[in-house]
Amino acid sequence: MGILGIIVEYNPFHNGHLYHLQTSKELTKCDYTIAVMSGNFVQRGEPAIVDKWKRTQMALKAGIDLVIELPVVYATSTAENFAYGAVKLLDSLKIVDCFSFGSEKGDLNELTKIAEILLEEPIYYRKALKEYLKSGITFAKARELALQKVINNNEIEKILQTSNNILAIEYLKSLKKIGSSITPFTIKRKGSLYTSLELKGEFASASSIRKHIFEKGLEGLEKYIPDFTKEILQSSFEKKQGPVSLEEFSNILIYLLRNHIPLNHIFDVSEGLENKIYKASYKTNNVEELMKLVKSKRYTESRIRHILIHLLLNIDKQIFKEFDGPNYIRVLGFNEKGKEMLREIKKKSPLPIITKVSQYKEKLSNTKMFEKDLFATDVYTLAYKNSSIAGLDFIHPLIKL
Amino acid sequence: MGILGIIVEYNPFHNGHLYHLQTSKELTKCDYTIAVMSGNFVQRGEPAIVDKWKRTQMALKAGIDLVIELPVVYATSTAENFAYGAVKLLDSLKIVDCFSFGSEKGDLNELTKIAEILLEEPIYYRKALKEYLKSGITFAKARELALQKVINNNEIEKILQTSNNILAIEYLKSLKKIGSSITPFTIKRKGSLYTSLELKGEFASASSIRKHIFEKGLEGLEKYIPDFTKEILQSSFEKKQGPVSLEEFSNILIYLLRNHIPLNHIFDVSEGLENKIYKASYKTNNVEELMKLVKSKRYTESRIRHILIHLLLNIDKQIFKEFDGPNYIRVLGFNEKGKEMLREIKKKSPLPIITKVSQYKEKLSNTKMFEKDLFATDVYTLAYKNSSIAGLDFIHPLIKL
Repeated sequence: MGILGIIVEYNPFHNGHLYHLQTSKELTKCDYTIAVMSGNFVQRGEPAIVDKWKRTQMALKAGIDLVIELPVVYATSTAENFAYGAVKLLDSLKIVDCFSFGSEKGDLNELTKIAEILLEEPIYYRKALKEYLKSGITFAKARELALQKVINNNEIEKILQTSNNILAIEYLKSLKKIGSSITPFTIKRKGSLYTSLELKGEFASASSIRKHIFEKGLEGLEKYIPDFTKEILQSSFEKKQGPVSLEEFSNILIYLLRNHIPLNHIFDVSEGLENKIYKASYKTNNVEELMKLVKSKRYTESRIRHILIHLLLNIDKQIFKEFDGPNYIRVLGFNEKGKEMLREIKKKSPLPIITKVSQYKEKLSNTKMFEKDLFATDVYTLAYKNSSIAGLDFIHPLIKL
Repeated sequence: MGILGIIVEYNPFHNGHLYHLQTSKELTKCDYTIAVMSGNFVQRGEPAIVDKWKRTQMALKAGIDLVIELPVVYATSTAENFAYGAVKLLDSLKIVDCFSFGSEKGDLNELTKIAEILLEEPIYYRKALKEYLKSGITFAKARELALQKVINNNEIEKILQTSNNILAIEYLKSLKKIGSSITPFTIKRKGSLYTSLELKGEFASASSIRKHIFEKGLEGLEKYIPDFTKEILQSSFEKKQGPVSLEEFSNILIYLLRNHIPLNHIFDVSEGLENKIYKASYKTNNVEELMKLVKSKRYTESRIRHILIHLLLNIDKQIFKEFDGPNYIRVLGFNEKGKEMLREIKKKSPLPIITKVSQYKEKLSNTKMFEKDLFATDVYTLAYKNSSIAGLDFIHPLIKL
C-alpha cells in the first residue's frame, strides 16, 4: 500500500482540488491519502470561509482518508514557514511515501534546481544576490536575478511569478532540509491562477469562488464546486456559521491598533511599518481599507495581512524559534482507511496524536503551539452570527465518514 | 448675574430635561447656565446614543450657554465617582452660584441629612453598619438599615431605591466634601422613573426613548423630545453616526475576554467576578448576553457594565488615586453668554481651559486623564458605519450657537 500526502486549505473545496487529488492518486499509484490542512485561518492571512470541521467534511467526501490540522502558527505564516511546518508534519507521520503538490510549472526539474540553490546558497549565488541587493531593488527581485544568473535560465522570472510555484519550491526546500524520504510529485495546475478573481474556464480559483459567494451567494457555482461542497456551505450559512471574512474582525483589529498594542513582537514587523499601520488605523475602521492605506512597493499587502492575523491571534515571532515544526498530530477527521493509518502512525511517529483535545496537557510537554490553535478557534467563532461559544475544539466531534 | 450649574448626559435630550432646565432657571433666578456633560460614554456604563458634539448641539439649542465635558474616567464610573468628578469640575470653574439636580424626593432636607451621615460616618452610624454587615446582607442593604436606624425615618428605603435620589445624595456629599460655596437646589422629577422602559405619560425616560429608537426608529417620539433633538438624531443616523449601543462593541469585548486580558487592575473587580466574566465570554459573543450570564444577587448588572466599559476604554483603578477630580476644563460648545463666562473662568479657575485639543500637552502636566477622553472617542467612532476616523477630538470644531 502506498500513502500519498498532500497539503491543502480547501477554502472551499472545488473541482480544481478534485482534479489535483485524482490526478495525484493516479500518478503516484497510492491507495491511501492523508491531507495536512490549515485550520480556521489560512495562508492568505485571513479566516477560512467556513471552519475546519466543515472543510474536513469536504475533504473526506472528496476521497481523502485522513485529515490532520496544520497548526495555526504555520498555517498563517509566510510561504516558507507554511511549507516547512506542513512538510515537517507530513514527514513526522513516518508513513507517507509520496507528496504531490500543484504548480504552474508542472515539472520538478527546474523547481528542484531553484530549491537546492535557495537552500544551500552556494557562494556564487550569494555573491550575485549581494550585488543585486546593493542596487537598491527589493529582496524578491534581487533573488530572482541572482537565481537567473546562476542557473542561466531566462524562465526564472516567470516561474517565480506564481504562488503555486513559489510554494512548490518551498516544499522541495523543506523536504531536502529535513532529509525526508518522501518522494515529491507535482501536478500542473489547470485553469485560473490562484490570484485570478474571475470565475471562468473549466476550473475556478478558490479566491474567485469566495468572491462570488460574498457578493452573490452560492448560486452559479455549480460548474466549479462539487455538490457536497455546495451542500456543506449551504447548511453552514443557514446556521449562520459563515461565510467568514477578515472584515468580521475589522473592529477588533482597528481597536487593538488604536489602543497601540505593541506590534514589534510580531514576525516581519519593522519599525517603519509598525508606525504606518498605527497611523492607518486612525483613518479607517475597515481592515481592507487599512491594508490599502499601508500597502506600498516596500510593504506588500500579503505581509500586512500576515501581521494583522498574527496580531489578532496573538502569535509572536518567538514561537518560530521555540519550535522546529509541529509538536503534535491533531486529527480532524478520517474514514476506515484513515483509521488504519492512524494505528500505523501511532506506532511509528515520534509525535503524540491528539484526537481528544481535553488530553492535550498530558500529551504535550510544550502546549504553547497547540493553545494558539485553541485560541484561533475562539476568535474564529466570534464571527458566527447567532450563537458563538468558545472552546469548540473541546466539544466538536471528530469528522468520520 | 447668577450662574447655574447642572450635570447632564442628555442621552438624548428630552422634554424632561427641558422641564428640569427651565424650572431650575426659574427657581434659582440664574441668567446663565453651564452644563457639565458626559462625553461619548455615559454613567450607565455604555456608549452614548450619539456623540458628545451632537448632544452639545442639543444642549445649546435647549438654552444651555456653555457645555463642558465630564472626563470619561468619571463619566463611566460609579455614582460616587461620577458625582464627585462632576461636582468638583463645576466647583473648579469658580463662577458657579447654584447647582440644580433632579431627584425623585424633590426636597433637600432628608437628602442632605443622609449625605452628611454618609460623608461623616459618625460612630453610631458606623457601629450600626458593622452590625448589619455581620448578618451577611449586601452592603447597600446594610447601609440603608444603618441610616434608617440613625435617622429614625422609615422613608429611607424608599429614598434609596431610585437612582436620581442616589445621585443627588452623592452630589450633596461631594459639595460638602470639597467645601464648595455653590448652593444646591433640587427639582422633583416628573414622569417616568429613570429606569422605566415604557414610553408613556407626560415625560418619558431617556432609557425608554433609546429603547424606542433602537427598536422602532424616531417616529412616535414627538411627544417626548423637542424638534431639535429629533432633527439632530435624524441627521446623525443618516450619516450613519449612530444610534450607537454597547452591542457594537460586543466582538471587541468578547475577544479581549477570550484572550484573557487581565481584569484585576479595573475598579470593582474581585477575583471571583473576574473568573465569572472570563467563563461567560466562552458562552456567547454578545455583551448583553454576557451580562445576563454573570449577573447575580452579589454582582449587579450595573457593576458588570462598568467593568466592561473600563476594560474597553482601558481605564484602571489607579487613575482614581492619581487624580483628585478633573485637571482640565474641556469646552465642547457655547453661545455668546458662554463666551462671556469662559473669560471669567479663565480669570478665576485654577484649571487650564482646553478649547484647542492640539494644545493639551502644553496645558497639562499630567495628560493621562485627558488621553482617556481621546481614546474613548477613537473607540466610539469604531461604531460609525460608513467612515470612521480616529483623532476626531483634534479636528472636530467647537459647537457654537
